[in-house]
Amino acid sequence: MDIEKKLKEMGLQLPPAPPPGGVYQPVVIIGNLLYVSGQGPVRSDGSLIKGRLGADLAIDEGYDAARQVGLTMLATIKAHTGNLSTLKRLVKSLGMVNSTLDFHDHPRVINGFSELMVALMGEQAGKGARSAVGMILPGNIAVEIEAIFEIHE
Amino acid sequence: MDIEKKLKEMGLQLPPAPPPGGVYQPVVIIGNLLYVSGQGPVRSDGSLIKGRLGADLAIDEGYDAARQVGLTMLATIKAHTGNLSTLKRLVKSLGMVNSTLDFHDHPRVINGFSELMVALMGEQAGKGARSAVGMILPGNIAVEIEAIFEIHE
Amino acid sequence: MDIEKKLKEMGLQLPPAPPPGGVYQPVVIIGNLLYVSGQGPVRSDGSLIKGRLGADLAIDEGYDAARQVGLTMLATIKAHTGNLSTLKRLVKSLGMVNSTLDFHDHPRVINGFSELMVALMGEQAGKGARSAVGMILPGNIAVEIEAIFEIHE
Repeated sequence: MDIEKKLKEMGLQLPPAPPPGGVYQPVVIIGNLLYVSGQGPVRSDGSLIKGRLGADLAIDEGYDAARQVGLTMLATIKAHTGNLSTLKRLVKSLGMVNSTLDFHDHPRVINGFSELMVALMGEQAGKGARSAVGMILPGNIAVEIEAIFEIHE
Repeated sequence: MDIEKKLKEMGLQLPPAPPPGGVYQPVVIIGNLLYVSGQGPVRSDGSLIKGRLGADLAIDEGYDAARQVGLTMLATIKAHTGNLSTLKRLVKSLGMVNSTLDFHDHPRVINGFSELMVALMGEQAGKGARSAVGMILPGNIAVEIEAIFEIHE
Repeated sequence: MDIEKKLKEMGLQLPPAPPPGGVYQPVVIIGNLLYVSGQGPVRSDGSLIKGRLGADLAIDEGYDAARQVGLTMLATIKAHTGNLSTLKRLVKSLGMVNSTLDFHDHPRVINGFSELMVALMGEQAGKGARSAVGMILPGNIAVEIEAIFEIHE
């Protein structure tokens, strides 16, 4: 598994790792577990994908935002550990979708993140446990995802 | 602690383990921790309990849905590990209730899950840390719960 | 790091540890990780800070509520472990803000909790991974936070 090589093959670039939007560590490592703080969808130019599913954004736009959260998360991990080869597998993610009260397709949105992880890390290592639900998100960003990875010790 | 025997004594049957509703593993095991993806309330016939607390469902209906999530979670764990005797204790659950903005009795709803776990695993092993809050849920299901269990190694 | 001494220096008092508001353990310890159930903002007299950000409460009032959640969490941990010196570092928190659909400053609210942890435990040990988002909270409390701490073994 070589995530950086795979990113290159897929023609994908990591956005700039965002500065923390509050008083927290983007990444905390305890033993063989790496906890990543909730990440938003940062574009290459540093701007954020905003809007609410069910009102402003269609499902495929939400999917793209969730995929961009995946790239942002990897940028954050790389910035704080120096290296994506430390990642062994995705353990768990909490996919938070900015949605109206009547929107009910959160899993299809968060699949944008999950399918990227599988494409980059493989079917076994890239597919973790998950919940995908609707919330009210800071800055009106479209998607926020926090995750736990297992790392090589 | 014999969960399957206890289920039989209580006259309870596990529903069919649901297929994942997206790109994720229903269960991921890291060391002695078992992470279960967010589970919905699956009935014996495979259908889901739907509706919003504060609008469509009364508290006792939500309680029953949360209890059904507990049975669904055990079905999922059994399907992926072959055996419920691997479970040592409930560590933590996040109880997510589909609710209106003015509904505030989420803990009483999630107690349906928590009291089942205590009945099946005992006061010590079945009672974990917990949060019980309101969100917008996929497919308009009434309750979704994710959890971490400690397992026997 | 001496949290109790620091509390005294800062002129802060822990509120009474609240009884569990449902069927759960306030604190569960597995190995070197301590999981704290979602805590609300308990005042010294045992009452709860209630209201919704974006409607009833201003950001600085939400900040104060989040800070009070921090004190409540420490009271809960002390009541269940006897001693705050067991805490080694904050690993992760999930900051849940009771907010209207149009409120988007959740991180500034949860900073009330996070800045207290940094003041009490130091920049390294007190700053964990975090998500800060909006939900519907039980009892209409202003803020609820769950967390994982690393403890000394």
